Amino acid sequence: MVASTGEVGSDLLFEVDRFYATQQMQLDSGDVEGFGKSFTEDATFALGAGDSVPGGRAGIVAVMRGLVERFQAAAVHRHHWFGMRQVDHSDDGAIRAVYYAIVSHTSSEGAVKLDPSSVVTDHLVRAADGALAVRSRRIVLDLPGRA
Amino acid sequence: MVASTGEVGSDLLFEVDRFYATQQMQLDSGDVEGFGKSFTEDATFALGAGDSVPGGRAGIVAVMRGLVERFQAAAVHRHHWFGMRQVDHSDDGAIRAVYYAIVSHTSSEGAVKLDPSSVVTDHLVRAADGALAVRSRRIVLDLPGRA
Amino acid sequence: MVASTGEVGSDLLFEVDRFYATQQMQLDSGDVEGFGKSFTEDATFALGAGDSVPGGRAGIVAVMRGLVERFQAAAVHRHHWFGMRQVDHSDDGAIRAVYYAIVSHTSSEGAVKLDPSSVVTDHLVRAADGALAVRSRRIVLDLPGRA
Repeated sequence: MVASTGEVGSDLLFEVDRFYATQQMQLDSGDVEGFGKSFTEDATFALGAGDSVPGGRAGIVAVMRGLVERFQAAAVHRHHWFGMRQVDHSDDGAIRAVYYAIVSHTSSEGAVKLDPSSVVTDHLVRAADGALAVRSRRIVLDLPGRA
Repeated sequence: MVASTGEVGSDLLFEVDRFYATQQMQLDSGDVEGFGKSFTEDATFALGAGDSVPGGRAGIVAVMRGLVERFQAAAVHRHHWFGMRQVDHSDDGAIRAVYYAIVSHTSSEGAVKLDPSSVVTDHLVRAADGALAVRSRRIVLDLPGRA
Repeated sequence: MVASTGEVGSDLLFEVDRFYATQQMQLDSGDVEGFGKSFTEDATFALGAGDSVPGGRAGIVAVMRGLVERFQAAAVHRHHWFGMRQVDHSDDGAIRAVYYAIVSHTSSEGAVKLDPSSVVTDHLVRAADGALAVRSRRIVLDLPGRA
């Protein structure tokens, strides 16, 4: 794990909050291309200790498109909820964010269920245009063998 | 939709966060009059593409009082949870907030269920005393035909 | 209830957010000792109008260790989610935070359930090293007879 070199100021923390709100609203509304642009071209995206999705941003978009289409076909509305976030500078110049995530699924009849919660660790960097982008995301689901 | 003319600073964002926390704690604790004061006299409040509640603030208070009494009679505790909020200045001088909302219901036996999630768009303005107030609220529930 | 003497600035609000994120990640990950250090030695911790856990920090740690061990034995992952928080200065120099809390439980099969929601009122003070610490916590669960 990359060490922390200090806390972030309030302006950066707000920018990070906004970044996640935009990113997840894109994903939940089915804008997979927009969602993809919030990752670097060579971003890694991994579940637990497992391998990363291959192919960087393009691979992440492909996986997310499949998920989005599956839920759309089932008429399920998903919302990603992030909470309890901590944001630090990491010693390689990235921004490290650690937070809880949980996903609500609302069926066409209005029944709501929650997917297993997770703890997510992101490293964010600046893209060429100055915007934030995810360089790496690691999601640890609260299931056995996913540490 | 009113265009955004820029992001808000951290002080305003905090004020907005606090405004929502106060407003929803009023609603969830049954202080419908206090809740009503967080809307302008002529506020609009609409579900999806449907018509707005008629009567401005007074109409909103009447609808909310009915809901609050119904849940109190059933001994259900409700909590409104907002998340993933984005706050911008809109080009007519209002503050536009877009966020997810979900409502938890706890029964007198301790069973918890969630209402269908929603995406809410508010326009906030300053009341005569300088406090924030909702001028318009549009709630898009995650149910078919509610876009 | 201690009266409020004013709102907090954004830097303090962020510090409070971070304090809670750290505290709850410690609890949810089973670091009960770390969690305990976020309370003063003589902290009070009460459910509703009931008596406080006896013994200050040591008593709180003992109760929490029992809970953590019980959920670990059942292979249940818990996450505490705080929302809709309000933070003020109280007139005795403490920081008063009021917020909603809800706890998600994920079973080893991935089923998620929520514990009854609550409204929590904390008074935070500065420890000798300048860090925040909970001097008192009162949790009002949304269940009958818990006001």
